Order: sequence, then C-alpha cells, then structure tokens
Amino acid sequence: MEALLQQSRAMCPFLKRTAPTTLRTLSSAAHPSSGGGTMSNLQVVARRCPVMSKALAVQSARMSGLKRFSSSSSTAAAAPLRPISKRALHTTGGHPASVAPGAYEKTESVHPSLGKTLRSTPAAQTSVRGPRPAAPVTAQFDYDAFYNGELEKKHKDKSYRYFNNINRLAKEFPRAHTASAEERVTVWCSNDYLGMGRNPQVLESMHRTLDTYGAGAGGTRNISGHNKHAVALEDTLAKLHGKEAALVFSSCFVANDATLATLGSKLPDCVILSDSLNHASMIQGIRHSGAKKMVFKHNDLEDLEAKLASLPLHVPKIIAFESVYSMCGSIAPIEAICDLADKYGAITFNDEVHAVGMYGPHGAGVAEHLDYDVYASQDTASPKSTKGTVMDRIDIITGTLGKAYGCVGGYIAGSANLVDTIRSLAPGFIFTTSLPPATMAGADAAIQYQMQQPRDRILQQLHTRAVKTALKELDIPVIPNPSHIVPLLVGDADLAKRASDKLLEEHGIYVQAINYPTVPRGEERLRITPTPGHVKPLRDHLVQAVQAVWNDLGIKRTSDWQAQGGFVGVGVDGAEEANQPIWKDFQLGVDASEPLESAIARELSTEAAEKAISA
Amino acid sequence: MEALLQQSRAMCPFLKRTAPTTLRTLSSAAHPSSGGGTMSNLQVVARRCPVMSKALAVQSARMSGLKRFSSSSSTAAAAPLRPISKRALHTTGGHPASVAPGAYEKTESVHPSLGKTLRSTPAAQTSVRGPRPAAPVTAQFDYDAFYNGELEKKHKDKSYRYFNNINRLAKEFPRAHTASAEERVTVWCSNDYLGMGRNPQVLESMHRTLDTYGAGAGGTRNISGHNKHAVALEDTLAKLHGKEAALVFSSCFVANDATLATLGSKLPDCVILSDSLNHASMIQGIRHSGAKKMVFKHNDLEDLEAKLASLPLHVPKIIAFESVYSMCGSIAPIEAICDLADKYGAITFNDEVHAVGMYGPHGAGVAEHLDYDVYASQDTASPKSTKGTVMDRIDIITGTLGKAYGCVGGYIAGSANLVDTIRSLAPGFIFTTSLPPATMAGADAAIQYQMQQPRDRILQQLHTRAVKTALKELDIPVIPNPSHIVPLLVGDADLAKRASDKLLEEHGIYVQAINYPTVPRGEERLRITPTPGHVKPLRDHLVQAVQAVWNDLGIKRTSDWQAQGGFVGVGVDGAEEANQPIWKDFQLGVDASEPLESAIARELSTEAAEKAISA
Repeated sequence: MEALLQQSRAMCPFLKRTAPTTLRTLSSAAHPSSGGGTMSNLQVVARRCPVMSKALAVQSARMSGLKRFSSSSSTAAAAPLRPISKRALHTTGGHPASVAPGAYEKTESVHPSLGKTLRSTPAAQTSVRGPRPAAPVTAQFDYDAFYNGELEKKHKDKSYRYFNNINRLAKEFPRAHTASAEERVTVWCSNDYLGMGRNPQVLESMHRTLDTYGAGAGGTRNISGHNKHAVALEDTLAKLHGKEAALVFSSCFVANDATLATLGSKLPDCVILSDSLNHASMIQGIRHSGAKKMVFKHNDLEDLEAKLASLPLHVPKIIAFESVYSMCGSIAPIEAICDLADKYGAITFNDEVHAVGMYGPHGAGVAEHLDYDVYASQDTASPKSTKGTVMDRIDIITGTLGKAYGCVGGYIAGSANLVDTIRSLAPGFIFTTSLPPATMAGADAAIQYQMQQPRDRILQQLHTRAVKTALKELDIPVIPNPSHIVPLLVGDADLAKRASDKLLEEHGIYVQAINYPTVPRGEERLRITPTPGHVKPLRDHLVQAVQAVWNDLGIKRTSDWQAQGGFVGVGVDGAEEANQPIWKDFQLGVDASEPLESAIARELSTEAAEKAISA
Repeated sequence: MEALLQQSRAMCPFLKRTAPTTLRTLSSAAHPSSGGGTMSNLQVVARRCPVMSKALAVQSARMSGLKRFSSSSSTAAAAPLRPISKRALHTTGGHPASVAPGAYEKTESVHPSLGKTLRSTPAAQTSVRGPRPAAPVTAQFDYDAFYNGELEKKHKDKSYRYFNNINRLAKEFPRAHTASAEERVTVWCSNDYLGMGRNPQVLESMHRTLDTYGAGAGGTRNISGHNKHAVALEDTLAKLHGKEAALVFSSCFVANDATLATLGSKLPDCVILSDSLNHASMIQGIRHSGAKKMVFKHNDLEDLEAKLASLPLHVPKIIAFESVYSMCGSIAPIEAICDLADKYGAITFNDEVHAVGMYGPHGAGVAEHLDYDVYASQDTASPKSTKGTVMDRIDIITGTLGKAYGCVGGYIAGSANLVDTIRSLAPGFIFTTSLPPATMAGADAAIQYQMQQPRDRILQQLHTRAVKTALKELDIPVIPNPSHIVPLLVGDADLAKRASDKLLEEHGIYVQAINYPTVPRGEERLRITPTPGHVKPLRDHLVQAVQAVWNDLGIKRTSDWQAQGGFVGVGVDGAEEANQPIWKDFQLGVDASEPLESAIARELSTEAAEKAISA
C-alpha cells in the first residue's frame, strides 16, 4: 500500500503537492450530494482527474449492475438512470422526436452521489411508448455537486460576494435607502462620480424621449434599432474626443471585449501588449482574440519598451491600457506610451472609463487633461491647434456612459475607418439590441452638460483632496495616487467585509469591500469615491466613522504598514510626492495659502448662485 | 522565371489556388494607401504572408536607407519613421517616461504606402530633448490599409451594412419618422413584437423610477449597483419560468456569451452540443469557453443523439439551442431534446429570446406553451402540478427584456446553485455596470403585464396568420414555419437591399434586408414581424407594396423556387403541413369556419372595450 502511494505520488501532480494530512481531511465524508447522501471531497476531486474518473466510472458501473440485478427483475437491462419519461404533451411541428419516450424503470441503482439528480415523475403521467435505445452504463456527471463545489470554494476563500441592497435617491443625493424604504445611508462608493444620474437636464431629456419614442430601441442597430439618438450620441462622443467617429455598445465591458477581440483576431499575427492591472473586460477581449498577449508591468515603460523591441517592427501591435486604474487610482504615462507606440509601430488602446467626465476642460478624460490649456482654449475666440496633442495621438479611446455620465452603455472613438471596421465585424456590436432611445438621449445630455462646465469635476476633486487629507492625518492607509479614487488598504478579505458591514450597520455609510478577483488577494481594500454632493458634514461623518471602524477592528494604520517596509504604496517613502494630483491647484482655482474648505465653500456658493440664475 | 513560378506554386498555398489572371489583376495598382499613394492589392496580400512580408521589409529597409543617405545629411541614423515629437506638456505623476522624447527628423524616407500614417507636427512645438534609442529599420504595419481592406471586402460581397435612421413613435405605434421628423413610415421589422415599448404601464413605471432613483445604477451589482429593482426583476423572472433563481445581464448577448463561456470553461472536459443555426451570442460563448464543440444539424434529433452517444456518459455536456430561430422562425423539438439530455447526462441551455412574452399562457416562452393547459390552470382555483413539464425540465433558460418586453437587457433562469455559480464566476456579469433602475422597473412591469393576459400575443399571432396567408396567395415566397416570424426569401444580397430600399422609399414601409452574416449567403431575405398594432389597413398596404416590389425587381416567386426543386422550405412539398402554427386555433379562440378577419375584429373590440373600462 505504501509502495502504491509512493508510486502515485511520483506520477500524480495532485498527490505530489498535497500533504498526507490534507488528503485525510479530504477523504472524510463532507460533501453533500444531490442525491441526498454525502461523498468525500476527495471523491469530488477524483472525479475531475482523467485517470481516477475513469476508474470511478468503471467501479460505479460495476456496482450499479450488481444492484440492478439483485434488486429488480428488470426487462430493460440498459439505461438504469432514466426515470419514467413523461408523456409528450405536444410534439413540435415538423420535428418529431426520433427517440420515442421509452419504458424505463424508475431506479436509483447507481450511488446517489454519482448520478444526475433524478427528476420526480408526475404521478398522472404513466403512459409510456416503445422501447428506448440503450445508453452506456456509467455514471452521469453530477452538475449540482459541481455548482456546490464552485460555491464552496468562494465561501472558503472569502471571495463569495454578498450584494448590498442600496437604492440611491435622486432627490437626496448622495443618500440612499436600504431594503427598507425608510432607512437612509450615505453612499460613498458609487461610480456615479458627478451625480449626473440625478441631473435635472439628464432626467428631463430622458422623460421627454420616453414619452415620444418609448421604452426600448426594438432592434439591433442594423434592424430597426438605429435612430437619431444613436446618431447624435455618437456625434457628440466623436467631438468630445476629437476623433472622426464613435460607436456605442451595451456597455464598456462589451466595447472593450468586442473591439480587442475583433482587432486581435483580424490583424494578421497581432500582438497585444497589456498593462498588468488592466480591467477584466480587456483581459477577456484579449483572450477572446486569440492574439499573442504580452503583459507589461503596471505603468512600467521600460518593461513595455523591452517587450515592444522584442517584436518585429512590421508585426501589428496594440498597446492596451487604462488612463485611471479604478481600484488603486494610478494614472498611466499616456504620452510616453504614445511615443513608444510611434517608435515601434503599435496602435494605442486607451480605456478612459474612470476618467471621462472627470478630467480635462471638457471632461474628455486624462488624455485631454494632459493638454489642458490647448483644449480649454477651444472655447475661446482663438483656439489652438489640437494636432499632436496626447488625445489626438491615441488611436482608440474607450469610455463609459455609466459612471461619471450617470447612465449606462459604453463606446469607442477613433478614426472613421477603424470605427467602421469594428461596426462591420464585431459580433458583440452587431447582434445585440441597441440601447434605449431615452438612455442615449440622457447620456448625450450628460456629456454636453459636462463639456460646457467643469464645476462638478472641480468640486469632486476638492472633496477628494479634503477626504484624503483628513484620513491621512488620522494615519488611515490611503493608497497614494494622483486621481479621484480614495482606496483604503485593509489587506484581508474577511476584515474588509467586516469593516464594510460595520460602516453600513453602525454608521449608515455604504462603502463596499473590494476583494478578489477585483483586486489581488492580500490587497483587499475599501474604495471611497467622493462626489460633488459629499459636503462637509457628510465628509466629517465619514472620517469619524472610518476612524471608529479602524479602531474597533484593529485594522493596520499607515504607520503599521510603514514599519513593515510599506505595501502597494502605503508607508512607502516618496510615494506621496510621486503621486501629486493630476488636477493642479491653478486648474482647481485653489490658492495654496488658503484653507481647502474655503475654496470648496467658494465653489459651492458660485454653483448655487449660477443654478439660481439659470432656474 | 517560369521555373521559379512553378516552384513557388508548388510551395505556396496562395499561389496554388489562385489563377494567373487573378494574380495579374491583383498586381495592378489599385489600393489607396494611407500615405496618399497607391499600392497593388497583391502587395497588400503579400504583406500578410510570413515569407513575403520579410522579403518586402528587407527591400523597403534597403530602399529607405538609400533614400535617407541621398536626401539628407542626417546625424541620427536610426528611427527614420519618427516625426518630430511634441514637447511633453505634462509628465504623469510617479511614472516618468524612460524614453526621453528625442531629436528626430521629420522624414518620409520609406515608401509612403508601407509606413504608418505620419502625423503632421504642430508648428509651435519644436522643442526637443536628447537622443532617442535606435529602432529597428523595417516597415511598420499599415493599420489604415488593413481597415480599408476589411471594409472593401464587405462592400465587394454586398455585406456592408447601411443603417436606416428609424425613430419609432410611442404614440403612433407601429409608425416611425425617418431622419426627417415629418416623414412617416410603418415599421414592419421591429422586435418590439408586442408594442410593450409604448405600453402605458411600462412607461409610467419608468417615469416614476427615473424621478425617484435617477438615470443610472451607478455601479456594478457588487459595488453599489444592486437594488430593489434588480431583486424584484429577478424574482419575477424566476417565477415566470418556474425556476429557483434568475440573473439579469446587460443584454441576452452577454447572458449567453458569459454563461456558456463560464460553464464550458469550468466544467471539467465539458462538451457543448450546439444547433447549427444558433445565434452569434451562443457561438461566441462556446468559442470563448474553450470547450469542445459539436455542431448538430438544425433541429435534427438523430444527429444530436449520434453526437451525444459518441461521448462518454460521465463527461459533462451542454445542449445549447433556441426555442424560436429568429431568422427562419423554426421551433426546436424541446421535449425530445430534454429526453436526450436525460438519457446522456447532459444539461439543456434553451435560448427563449424570441419566444418570451410571445408563447405560453403567461408569455414564458415555447417551453411553457408546450404544456399550455397545465400552466393556464395555475391561475385557477385548482392548479395542476408543473413538475415534469417541459419548462420544468429545462436546466437553463435565457431570455431578453429587449424584444417582446420592449426594454433592454437579458437574463438566465435556473436552479439557485447554477445561477449563483454564474453570478460568482462570470466576468461579463461581475465587471459591468447594472442596468438602470428605470429599465429594470419597466421590464418588470412589462413581464407582469404579459403574465396577466395573453391578448397581445394572440393578436400578434392573428396578424401573423393574416399576413402569411395574404402573401402566400400572391405567390410571395414565405419561408414556412410554425412561429410569429414572416421571412420572405429573396436569395441575393443586392436584391434584398434593393427590395428593402424600394419598400422604404416608394411605399413608406420599413423592412430591413437580412444579409450575411445574419443569414448564410444565398439565403438573403426580408424578415417581417407583425405586431398587435398592425391592423388591417396597414396589413393591406404591406401586402400591396411587397407585391409591387416583387414585380418591379422580378424577384423569384414561390412557384419559381418550386420549379427549381424548392429551397429552405419554399416550394418544398409538405413543408407547409409540417409547419402548422404552434398557437392552435382553440388557443387563439379562432373558429375554422369563420373568416380570420372576424376573429381579429372580435379580439380588437374586446381589447378596446377592456381598455376603455380600465382607463
């Protein structure tokens, strides 16, 4: 026996890396099976093994045969798994079943844990017809046990997700009610960064469009789902990004997935260079493209250049990256990436999902923000040329209508030919119902509103600064970054969830815990997103509550991380200095000599005054 | 030379199958290049060949070197392709470029047709810094030429799509205006099959939700995008299909793609058996899963069983199919597929996208319709057991909120564990913004409305019958099918588009031409979808117009197809008889002895009376 185990260990990668104690634990019966019995977790694992699964199947067939012959005088020797078939109530026109429902015994002759759940047979339906063709006698796959196993894994590693029922109230922004309509909480983790979801102009446009054009588009873009709202929205998006064309998708997940999958699969021998922190939608699009993928270290230009240089110049390459990385708030070195793209013959694919509406004089994103003065002058009498600006140099910009623009949907913008190619080839665009007219009209209104005035994003930035400063003063570990995201490092999945639950239950503050797979294990965090509506009393309340929860749960402080040498930028010397806000003081109208709250108060009072005038 | 060509022919698969005349045509300059010049189509093809592309690159590098030395006294010998870099206006915090913008010449030393489009350099930005690292001297990939080539292919084979600007008017359903707000047309190809997009209860629910909860969800389901609207909608969907749970996605394209990709990749050694006419979303999901795929002939149970029987019983298998195939209107033999699934240990994945709202006493789809009496009795005092019904036996039902329910979005319904597994693992669900509260509320209202009364789908079926009968009487080739789709066979891409254009421009009737890749080449068609709003004057107008266009363009009639032996069911003996409507006379309240229009008039007057009472 010992010899057999040693032999198995030498051959089997699973046994090789699993300790004997673990194997013992696994082999004790613990797994509830669909048949009502139990099977050991080792059996569950074994059924996934190409060697063991066959051995188990042979064993189970042998047992089943024995049982059948001993327990019944069956005439049909085959198909022991079939319950009595229900009578066909209807046949489907033109396609009669070639397999006649047969005379099958109801039997549970296989081990209940190995068979598919047997369906109960309706008592009234006992009429059966003809014999049934023989089926091979082995165990069917146990789908329920598989689902159970997958869910157990999630529970075990604390990555199972519990959704919070949060109903954001348009008239009380940023407040919401929970499952109970009376209970109020403050939302501090929405991606409706600017509160455009409750903007009166957006809502008015949506109400009007709903009344005139109805609820849905009624078809794909090609078949009755193309309309003036799509034309207008895509026109606005192209203008926003200074591109020839734009194309709207169901979401930016779909836009990223469909665009990268299409380009990567169609461009001959394409290689996609992907930032290591890229969003799941890009990772999925790249995988689906079947193209060669090279992952470069996050925002690491040296690594990116080394990888570009390793490829033949004539090979088509796509550099895929984000402008603002949503979970840590880092910002890509976009201009330098454009330089590398030019040098090595690559095109750039820049996901501005967390940046549109939020950066730049017109809210076109970080690429626009990098040439703030050039784009700000577009509204004046003597506009500067935008040729050669960072935004102009990006080949493909993708963005969302569901975050700072407060609606739903995604898009790409680029050259007319690029956009037409994706429009013509991408299944994820072609074969799906268009966004509703009212959604497109609302998004269009939101973009236009944000193009006309930067006040919301300035206030959002000021509130972000205030929150970051207050938390840092309390030694709360804010992951340093130059953007509008306020990520608080927790570093443990269970602790992050408990912190989130405590904030909600004890303080009426909703900040979702961010766990794997959204961030790597060990980097679990709370991700706070201030908005223009998070005025001082709400901010003070947040800071107080976070402090209390950090105390109650004994969560590590910045100084703790620092003592350990620092982690993901927290407690790392020089990390703060290297991550100065991308919105500069002069762009925000902030005077370094005055308190931040004064600047905020001035901004708020100007806003109120302007709103009063326009109302 | 002749010997060389013969040698090349023996080795090169392209040359082997291409006629000399074609090669001559290809080699004449015809391809506009991004640089403003032209290159031959043969050159374009050659640049995709792994052998020729290298030879061309070497040649071009040699030429470029020659040109460079002859035309300039450059000090920087490297990187001939770089335009002068614009000055960095901002560096990005913490991530300075490792490649300093260098002193590059503006040069066009490579053949303009082979290089990436050279960007013009803004005159004001001439400040440059330091030397730039050397780049390998060959041609960069020409992306613009690639896009052009892809688009040219689409134009050439007539599969390039021209979208029609159609604005469906809620208050004049099924009428719409074109790009001009004054011009009216009748829409005959919308998938808003029941006109729920303008249903007052749906719109009222959406207006109310918009006002209270705003435009967008503001986050993913996990991060602030989960709310009472999602809970209520998924609860309604689970009830509708008699399942434990349901899960809502951005669209049913995403639902199909994400669910099949997740199950196919996670189930060990999974095999997916897919109907040959399955929708693109399922094809994509299966491809993305990486699972083994076996395509069975459309609705062919013998072929399906042969494929199932060829697989070991213990291997997990998914049978993926649709209940109504949207482009031909055929209906799957669902019950027999369930029998096969039970026998061979497979689970069933049934796409009811074109059937929900349209079939069954509550609009749950064809699976419900197959046990009409059982489900109709659920509303009575003594409901029958639904155990073992076809709908109960289906493992995974997918459906849309964007067609008969008039909104947008998609879903799956199934066991609690299955749904929880997909909820926990599918990136296409996890990493995307939730549908807006108002969309979910509107869809919920639409489903509940259709659960309560079958009048809309009965009227829709009556109008379908009337249109099919009238067209058949005129020898117009309606592809026979038992569903609500009225596909007219044209059989030529160009002709189908011209017929569609003529209907729109000369008759004010919008029916989109359906060409490749939505249907196979040679099977191009017009696809007509009647609704409850297509009353007699509109139907008469349609029939008259189709007759005129068929005459004007000389499109083949049923008798023409019959003379050729028939095609896709048109002019095939017995095809009509085998495709009796799935909605039976008694379910529609039709008496075979009375004219169809009398039944329609009765149905319409009852509807009007009921509406008057409830108003």
